[in-house]
Amino acid sequence: MSEVVVSTRIRLARNLKDYPFPVKLNENGKKELCDKVTKAAKSIMDFDRIDMENLTNTQAVALVEQHLISPEFISNKVGRTLLLSKDRTISIMINEEDHIRLQVIKHGLCLKEAYDIANQLDTQLSEKLDFAFSDKLGYLTQCPTNLGTGMRASVMLHLSALQKGRAVSRISSNLSKLGLTIRGLYGESTEPAGALYQLSNQVSLGISEQSAIDNLKNIASELVTQEIKARDRILSDIEVIDTVSRSLGILKTARLINHNEAMNLLSNVRLGVAQKIVSSLTLDSLDKLISEIQPANILERFGDDLTVRERDIKRADFLRERLN
Amino acid sequence: MSEVVVSTRIRLARNLKDYPFPVKLNENGKKELCDKVTKAAKSIMDFDRIDMENLTNTQAVALVEQHLISPEFISNKVGRTLLLSKDRTISIMINEEDHIRLQVIKHGLCLKEAYDIANQLDTQLSEKLDFAFSDKLGYLTQCPTNLGTGMRASVMLHLSALQKGRAVSRISSNLSKLGLTIRGLYGESTEPAGALYQLSNQVSLGISEQSAIDNLKNIASELVTQEIKARDRILSDIEVIDTVSRSLGILKTARLINHNEAMNLLSNVRLGVAQKIVSSLTLDSLDKLISEIQPANILERFGDDLTVRERDIKRADFLRERLN
Repeated sequence: MSEVVVSTRIRLARNLKDYPFPVKLNENGKKELCDKVTKAAKSIMDFDRIDMENLTNTQAVALVEQHLISPEFISNKVGRTLLLSKDRTISIMINEEDHIRLQVIKHGLCLKEAYDIANQLDTQLSEKLDFAFSDKLGYLTQCPTNLGTGMRASVMLHLSALQKGRAVSRISSNLSKLGLTIRGLYGESTEPAGALYQLSNQVSLGISEQSAIDNLKNIASELVTQEIKARDRILSDIEVIDTVSRSLGILKTARLINHNEAMNLLSNVRLGVAQKIVSSLTLDSLDKLISEIQPANILERFGDDLTVRERDIKRADFLRERLN
Repeated sequence: MSEVVVSTRIRLARNLKDYPFPVKLNENGKKELCDKVTKAAKSIMDFDRIDMENLTNTQAVALVEQHLISPEFISNKVGRTLLLSKDRTISIMINEEDHIRLQVIKHGLCLKEAYDIANQLDTQLSEKLDFAFSDKLGYLTQCPTNLGTGMRASVMLHLSALQKGRAVSRISSNLSKLGLTIRGLYGESTEPAGALYQLSNQVSLGISEQSAIDNLKNIASELVTQEIKARDRILSDIEVIDTVSRSLGILKTARLINHNEAMNLLSNVRLGVAQKIVSSLTLDSLDKLISEIQPANILERFGDDLTVRERDIKRADFLRERLN
């Protein structure tokens, strides 16, 4: 499964009864809320507290690139705090759109496991914090689309063969009827860099967490099956083997490489590893690399003041070092 | 010098007084002439005799690709014989346009050395064969452009940096005024595959061999200087270093590669070797490889009945094996 499903994410939106939604909360109110939620969370397990105001833009964007926080979370850093578990699988954004955005992210397809972790933490938090909840509507959230379970479940899919066959947009248009949405993870185009897609549930009202997860799991499995079939179909083509092999060759030798090209080459290599054409690398090491070569991650590693060109050189240096 | 000048070639055109030019000679006459010239040549030094009729088309084209014979020589194989010295530096085409086309080919820039070898053999042959010679016109040849010395001297140049800077066509238009011509070796376009060019003298009447060679040598040296300057200028560019490095990476990993792409990648690598960016290869080994990956040479090595696609696969296999 992990050949296609890179990771699973569960996100719960929660709000505290006695506070207005963040959009209506002043700076002091936000800080009070950050302290309150942090105290509650830390009494349950060990979290690193990161007050977003203390981060540089590069550091903040690097966290977005690692999928630990949302892009929205860094649009305004004042009064916002991130809690991050030691293993970085659990993050809590305080004062994003809702007071609490609790996220669990795990490798591979493991919706139940990720949900159980999120659910357990949610239960423990609810014993210490008074969540806004209506018997009729479920959990109250600022945006009506999150009402009900307040849950978004998503899986990150590597649909390299389906993308090569230009099949993703056809699939995409059918998914909304099933209450799901699929979108490119890097770039909003129909052919996102790296062929990485996020499939997530859209409906949170009038549906249980369990059935939302089951629905997502069924569709994800179906997409995995389609992707694997497409891979088996194209992987006898010498052209595809050629592309995979050259992609690794280029990554190992380039002296200058931009984000988009690196993503697409890594995607090809990932396909090769999954299909056992490439044996010198693992899926895990590639997934880590994909995260590490993102623009802000490169800047964080090699220096904030790099020009775009210098960053592309550092990215190439980094890839050569890791892959050779 | 050999960074830029791949090889030097001297060709002498000679005809026997008592025979009509090949175009007017019947098959028996041609065969008689083949025997006669072969006998004379073999009494001077050891040659392999190859009657062109006995070669397959692939074998014949492979010899053209190795620059041992002219394309014209294989347009009709009847009554044509090739004599090839053991080290393959001397070849004698019998019944090409003229009765005798004697060619000496050597690595690097060595016009005098190559001419001396050709001249010595020519002198020895003239003691055994009665060459058509006029005091007024010099050696008589079928085509008036070869009258006089009957000599064409040429050098094969690797003008990779000048080609990248699109400077060759400008140079080309000035050369004809100097009695010289430059043309792409693989393909007649202004940007021939592999950036390999042949610079040769055009004038053979009213000029001594020595002054023709001096003229060619001076211009070749000037082109070498320009090319080296251009290399020094671009070789600080990370883009060029990137191109060189990737080119080798692709050649080492491709599973399918056509002639044109392989030539251009090898040209980039050759530039890298010359400029000491690539240290794992030598110019000689690359020049050998460039000859070995030519279409008919691949067919000769791997089988005459390959499709174009199969040939591109074999070419990639061969390159990977040689370069890894």
